[in-house]
Amino acid sequence: MAELRERLGVLHDLHRAGWLLGWDQQTMMPPAGTPARSEQIATVDRLAHELFVSDEMGELLDSLGELDPESVDGALVRVTRRDWEKARMVPAELRAEITRAEVLGVPAWADARKNSDYQAFLPHLRRHLELKRRYIECFADSGKSPYDTLLDDYQEDARSEDITAVFARLKEELIPLIREVAGAEQVDTSFAHGHFPVEKQELFAREILEPLGYSSEAWRLDPTVHPFATSIALDDIRLTTRYSEADLESIFHTTHEFGHGIYEFSVDRELDRTPLVELNSMVLHESQSRLWENLVCRSRPFWRFFFPKLQELFPDELSGVTDEAWWRAVNRIEPSFIRVEADEVTYGMHIILRYELEQELISGRLAPEDLPEAWNAKMQEYLGVDVPDDAKGVLQDVHWSAGSFGYFPTYLLGTIASVQIWETAQGDLTDLDAQMEAGEFGPLREWLTDKLYRWGRRLPPEEQLRRIVGGPLDAEPYLRYLKSKVSDIYGVRV
Amino acid sequence: MAELRERLGVLHDLHRAGWLLGWDQQTMMPPAGTPARSEQIATVDRLAHELFVSDEMGELLDSLGELDPESVDGALVRVTRRDWEKARMVPAELRAEITRAEVLGVPAWADARKNSDYQAFLPHLRRHLELKRRYIECFADSGKSPYDTLLDDYQEDARSEDITAVFARLKEELIPLIREVAGAEQVDTSFAHGHFPVEKQELFAREILEPLGYSSEAWRLDPTVHPFATSIALDDIRLTTRYSEADLESIFHTTHEFGHGIYEFSVDRELDRTPLVELNSMVLHESQSRLWENLVCRSRPFWRFFFPKLQELFPDELSGVTDEAWWRAVNRIEPSFIRVEADEVTYGMHIILRYELEQELISGRLAPEDLPEAWNAKMQEYLGVDVPDDAKGVLQDVHWSAGSFGYFPTYLLGTIASVQIWETAQGDLTDLDAQMEAGEFGPLREWLTDKLYRWGRRLPPEEQLRRIVGGPLDAEPYLRYLKSKVSDIYGVRV
Repeated sequence: MAELRERLGVLHDLHRAGWLLGWDQQTMMPPAGTPARSEQIATVDRLAHELFVSDEMGELLDSLGELDPESVDGALVRVTRRDWEKARMVPAELRAEITRAEVLGVPAWADARKNSDYQAFLPHLRRHLELKRRYIECFADSGKSPYDTLLDDYQEDARSEDITAVFARLKEELIPLIREVAGAEQVDTSFAHGHFPVEKQELFAREILEPLGYSSEAWRLDPTVHPFATSIALDDIRLTTRYSEADLESIFHTTHEFGHGIYEFSVDRELDRTPLVELNSMVLHESQSRLWENLVCRSRPFWRFFFPKLQELFPDELSGVTDEAWWRAVNRIEPSFIRVEADEVTYGMHIILRYELEQELISGRLAPEDLPEAWNAKMQEYLGVDVPDDAKGVLQDVHWSAGSFGYFPTYLLGTIASVQIWETAQGDLTDLDAQMEAGEFGPLREWLTDKLYRWGRRLPPEEQLRRIVGGPLDAEPYLRYLKSKVSDIYGVRV
Repeated sequence: MAELRERLGVLHDLHRAGWLLGWDQQTMMPPAGTPARSEQIATVDRLAHELFVSDEMGELLDSLGELDPESVDGALVRVTRRDWEKARMVPAELRAEITRAEVLGVPAWADARKNSDYQAFLPHLRRHLELKRRYIECFADSGKSPYDTLLDDYQEDARSEDITAVFARLKEELIPLIREVAGAEQVDTSFAHGHFPVEKQELFAREILEPLGYSSEAWRLDPTVHPFATSIALDDIRLTTRYSEADLESIFHTTHEFGHGIYEFSVDRELDRTPLVELNSMVLHESQSRLWENLVCRSRPFWRFFFPKLQELFPDELSGVTDEAWWRAVNRIEPSFIRVEADEVTYGMHIILRYELEQELISGRLAPEDLPEAWNAKMQEYLGVDVPDDAKGVLQDVHWSAGSFGYFPTYLLGTIASVQIWETAQGDLTDLDAQMEAGEFGPLREWLTDKLYRWGRRLPPEEQLRRIVGGPLDAEPYLRYLKSKVSDIYGVRV
């Protein structure tokens, strides 16, 4: 076991070095550094891969046999074997090509997005799809469909059949709900648009984050193009966010990324330098980003506490506004173009659209050059909006530029799980609303740490969720939550 | 050759990943990240070492035989063999221990310096010295003295016997020169002290750096505790500097680091991803930091061009001051405590003091606990000043905290070389002063690139210097230069 841990520790260090190369690329690196950075990341990734897939690693795992799956060692052997078997299927050369394509794709996407130039991005998308097909071929004997093979990288054993069924249930309810709201009187958000200098937004971000659990001792917050969170180490959590001076959307990017960060930060130290700190269930991960972004940061009690502070920072824009009006404004429901700025109700349709399109791309039924048209048609069908340009359409997200296909559904599955987890927390912490209204987030954070964060990757994700909420993923609490919010804010019966 | 290049490319990527881990630690990393960072750097370093010292690498080198030393391939084989033979002498475990001690030592030093607490630093220094002794033992058969073994890591085949002789010559001249100046009328620097907000200093730094050759396309400039420069890639140069609001010393830190950066930036692209871009002659490297800091940035023509811009930024402090008065002020000669803020004349004594003390530490003639006393005594002897506390004394520099012993003399040797190189440039570029006065640094930069930068590590450093200046290292031009400046500014006959 000591030898296994030693070898896994080295791999862990390499992975985190790779993550720093990635974080730096998106926050600090001068633009001309891109080609060399792509080599560096590919090299680090390839070395880690080669060290991992060795026969010795397999022999080491065999020699340890089956251990109690509830023990740390048992979990370590289980996840390592699973990862090892998957990693062995992919030749090092293909992995390096994939990594290199990712590193080149991201800045190309950033440029293409800036100029709303889909053609400039198209060769990168084609390259990714070609590499994905080669990747899928490596798992031809797994019994999984091509898309499910990709899904498995973001959520262990997820099946598109199940996801499609859940999403069908959501479509059934969300599309009419969106129409219902469109017919109701719209809430006022005029005061949420104006001039909000970045420095003050940054100040406010820290004012929110610190009571939530952020400290500059072990965290950073930086601006970037597409917000993300990464953990260079358990005590080195990097959040990124995006500021626009015209509004205060950054608050929600920041609390979203905080949710990722606090999950990474709160894993048991005993699991450090092992794969058990590599939180690879994106459904669980996104359940936390969405929980902190929505259940916390779009709640009434949260703004009862924080709105006066916000008002103090931006008196010109916000004096005379009540916290209730602000809460309604940040929950305004309205079809729009940008996923990361979407309200809780239309958000689901943004994801379902991407889920459907990426399945079509992977199967080859949709050609990459036809993607913008297909995108715009679905935006019209699901949300009734006309996409004005590709920057506000198909080019808005970083994921496909980094070769991430199969990631998007986890946002919505995570959002569904977040409401199940929240309802459970409300049951256990009977005065959760009162605590939030007093600016106390410690009890919630501790509850989440106890139930979820500290476990790291010890349990299979489905089992982890089951232990928290007492059952499988279920869309009904989420739908109830949305309807109750809609009826609260818009006064419509749903 | 292709296989050698491929293997060396991987090593290069790992080294640069390690440098990014180091840069990030000193500029961006939250403090609690230190222990994990130490593991990460040690792992990356150890892996690179293991890959490098393999028998296969030796066989590959043998199979290539002796090549034309003037060719790129010949140089590549020569430096790789030299590095390989040295690297094989040091067990991977010892290297990892050294790396780990460095990574832990730097933040411990930063804290100790902040609190002027030598005792807090002492265990780290002891640990470094113990590891250095073990390191030296690995080279017991090299015929080098213990200290020369350390020197060799910063300057190929440097010998303390030669250095001591050069330094003796300097002492002979510098000590009386310093006394001479002490008796003359002091120049006025009152306007150089005041309130200089950091943001404006940063603005001015960029205003200087851009004509010199910096561009945000391929460079960064960030604040840190102890300024340094690093190259994450040829097109990703990171300068760091230190700002104090009470004065404008940051200008000289910045141009010093720029000298390192422009050397790294200007190496032939053809040498990329090989050890030939790993510029390991610290004498040549420091010759460039000192050339840009002193010969350029403390020159009359430089300030004729830049002083009006500085005045514009800081009108309260600098209106009514002439560029001549400013030039005199930034060349004021006065014994002081801090090396990196020392004038050109006293600077040498700061280095000689460190050189002598580190030899004593390595030989064991001086115990680490007695170091502050020995430091303070020499400061009194060489510069006539009483060190008020260890922060302004023995704790001022980062080097020993990172286990760097044998580095300091290269600053002074580099300074000596910088004047030889400068005199040669003046011969070739007959209107160098006029160019600088017009803010044109392109011709100088191109001359330096042609003579030095583009060569990377192709030539042994002594040979490289000889090809530029036509002879070996020589203290006389440096002494002449100092005396002429002293007589210019202080009007004393020397």
